[in-house]
Amino acid sequence: MALLVQKYGGSSVANAERVKNVVSRVAKAKQQGNQIVVVVSAMGDTTDELIHLAHQVADHPDERELDVLLSTGEIVSSTLVAIAIKSLGYKAVSLSGAQAGIYTDANYSRARIHTIEPQRIFKELEKDNIVIVAGFQGITEEMDTTTLGRGGSDTTAVALAARLGANICEIYTDVEGVYTADPRIVPQAGKLNQINSQEMLELASYGAKVIHPRAVELAELYNIPILVASSFTQGSGTIIQGGIPMEARNKVRGIAHDLNVAKVTVVGVPDRPGIATTLFESLAQAGISVDTIVQNASINGITDLTFTVTRNDLGKAVQLIEPIAKSIGARYCATDAKLGKVSIIGTGMQNTPGYAARMFRALYDAGINIELITTSEIRITCLIGEGRVEDAVRTLHKAFELERMEG
Amino acid sequence: MALLVQKYGGSSVANAERVKNVVSRVAKAKQQGNQIVVVVSAMGDTTDELIHLAHQVADHPDERELDVLLSTGEIVSSTLVAIAIKSLGYKAVSLSGAQAGIYTDANYSRARIHTIEPQRIFKELEKDNIVIVAGFQGITEEMDTTTLGRGGSDTTAVALAARLGANICEIYTDVEGVYTADPRIVPQAGKLNQINSQEMLELASYGAKVIHPRAVELAELYNIPILVASSFTQGSGTIIQGGIPMEARNKVRGIAHDLNVAKVTVVGVPDRPGIATTLFESLAQAGISVDTIVQNASINGITDLTFTVTRNDLGKAVQLIEPIAKSIGARYCATDAKLGKVSIIGTGMQNTPGYAARMFRALYDAGINIELITTSEIRITCLIGEGRVEDAVRTLHKAFELERMEG
Repeated sequence: MALLVQKYGGSSVANAERVKNVVSRVAKAKQQGNQIVVVVSAMGDTTDELIHLAHQVADHPDERELDVLLSTGEIVSSTLVAIAIKSLGYKAVSLSGAQAGIYTDANYSRARIHTIEPQRIFKELEKDNIVIVAGFQGITEEMDTTTLGRGGSDTTAVALAARLGANICEIYTDVEGVYTADPRIVPQAGKLNQINSQEMLELASYGAKVIHPRAVELAELYNIPILVASSFTQGSGTIIQGGIPMEARNKVRGIAHDLNVAKVTVVGVPDRPGIATTLFESLAQAGISVDTIVQNASINGITDLTFTVTRNDLGKAVQLIEPIAKSIGARYCATDAKLGKVSIIGTGMQNTPGYAARMFRALYDAGINIELITTSEIRITCLIGEGRVEDAVRTLHKAFELERMEG
Repeated sequence: MALLVQKYGGSSVANAERVKNVVSRVAKAKQQGNQIVVVVSAMGDTTDELIHLAHQVADHPDERELDVLLSTGEIVSSTLVAIAIKSLGYKAVSLSGAQAGIYTDANYSRARIHTIEPQRIFKELEKDNIVIVAGFQGITEEMDTTTLGRGGSDTTAVALAARLGANICEIYTDVEGVYTADPRIVPQAGKLNQINSQEMLELASYGAKVIHPRAVELAELYNIPILVASSFTQGSGTIIQGGIPMEARNKVRGIAHDLNVAKVTVVGVPDRPGIATTLFESLAQAGISVDTIVQNASINGITDLTFTVTRNDLGKAVQLIEPIAKSIGARYCATDAKLGKVSIIGTGMQNTPGYAARMFRALYDAGINIELITTSEIRITCLIGEGRVEDAVRTLHKAFELERMEG
């Protein structure tokens, strides 16, 4: 008897019909003799609607209260799934994050899971219940509700799979799996049957929306295989797992892209130790994630410092950076919110020269100007104008012959 | 410094504008130096919408899950009120029924409060927080969410007022207070400035929808004065309190009516001991409240047994009663779902003859046929055809000269 954790995203439970569809899948897995823990997101656009409601009563809703408000979305969907399963004659019980024993820190809206106390879930599984857990939420030691941030339900699912010792964590969504590139942009993009965790982490971090990078990281840490598949079809999906070897014949596994990029350049920064520290510590304290950082070579002790943030964070970042820039004697801050990035990803690129050159050549031949470059061991990312991102994805998908790849 | 419990009903928090209105009232009471606990119902029709959603995924939604689902409605409104108050610069915190320490039995959909552990609320009040409690809900010893049934938020408010030692429980709703009759039916109906708890209990039980009878009962038991007033105006409302003396000059305080009445008659019942017990025990076990019971005088050892239930319960009641009726040799069951009732209520009627006769005469003169009569010490109720209920209310309001009464 296997223990499965199945996670269903918001589009998979968006209305009563889809809830019934989810339930028939859960029932099938149960009939096969498995113990099942289901994690659900809020129905469709519920979370956005609740945020809108909060903004109708306050310009800056209190974070502690907003977390309690948002947590109701997943409680609603978890009870509906439980109601639908029970009406088919199965035993089931819904649990909130608190009831499921998911303890987090008190960083509202972006809480991190500290520990999971799984006694209640095990008790319910022993009673032969299918356990439906409200995703995206936890509770502090003081019994206050928290949320894990966007994509948090993926994290809930993987964390539960790790803590419960599940055989696999199945993430059901509205796409068939992980593709070599976004199929809406590249019709020839192919589904990968399996992908290495490290590659998936880079893909997820650099724009492939199929699963949240935190969840991939957690799965890798605890060695939990993830299946990503569609809740609407019977496709085989994509297995994400550590240690999957690369095919030798093609070392780029996928093209990721992201349109939510803004650039800040602090112009004329005196090149003194500690200045970058001051700038980036203030951003970190405000909870702003900085992605790429580039510092030009210093000329006459003066340099330019460029970094990127998400567009949502741009206003807040500039507000924080401008007074600091002034106090350290920098000339001014320039911003550009109309950027995107495109990345090639593959563990096979490690220690293999020529990938970067091939990427830059392909973009150059397509007349796409590169603003910034950033790399990891298994990824090369170029920042480009947002209007050229789709072209760039198609260009690179072709240049690295991904349409010929077999998953 | 007084401790107030204020309860706001669903229509008072139906949208963002109304939430802001509620919040300005709460803020005013806080400025006056009071400690404040606010209890809220779900916004507008939320509860009905959630019930509808549950019925879209199952014909008979599981009660345990339905309670969790419905409890989200009050959590949403409690967080919105907290968000709006905090945005005005006040300290506030929302608490679920569980966080507020409201422990109930496990009778889902109609749970009774066992005990309230008020430590968390006191802790928040000490921190100068306005405490917003989600009404209508509690938690079992096993940490499972329960709901208290319709009107449960009134009960939450009064129970908290009693347990916290509040000076008063203020129930804000969409009417100005308690009237001598429903003003939509009797335009001359007057608002009562104060009313005795016993009278209010009868009024509430017999159709005046302004406050739930459980809440009145609880307030009487713990000697908590209740103010019922409109959340939309600055009117003085009605004080409900034990021991308020009656004015001597008019002993009927109000006319109540109710359209949600159905009658079941078991015809040809052998008049043996134990038969009524069997019938009514089976109804009680199914959670069906029986209101009036009338058994005709036995003729040749055969009698008719008549009782009334709410219309919602009629189908279930007949389903239960028919096989029992058959097994005990009764002839058949007759039902009538098109009934209503009208009541006159007043503590002054106690030990004063003539009220019943005056009521029956007034109805007779208006050509209204009485189907059944039932009385308490301070109430006389007549069952009549539902089409004549409004006539009867107006007739009795006039006959007992209530339009001349001063609250």
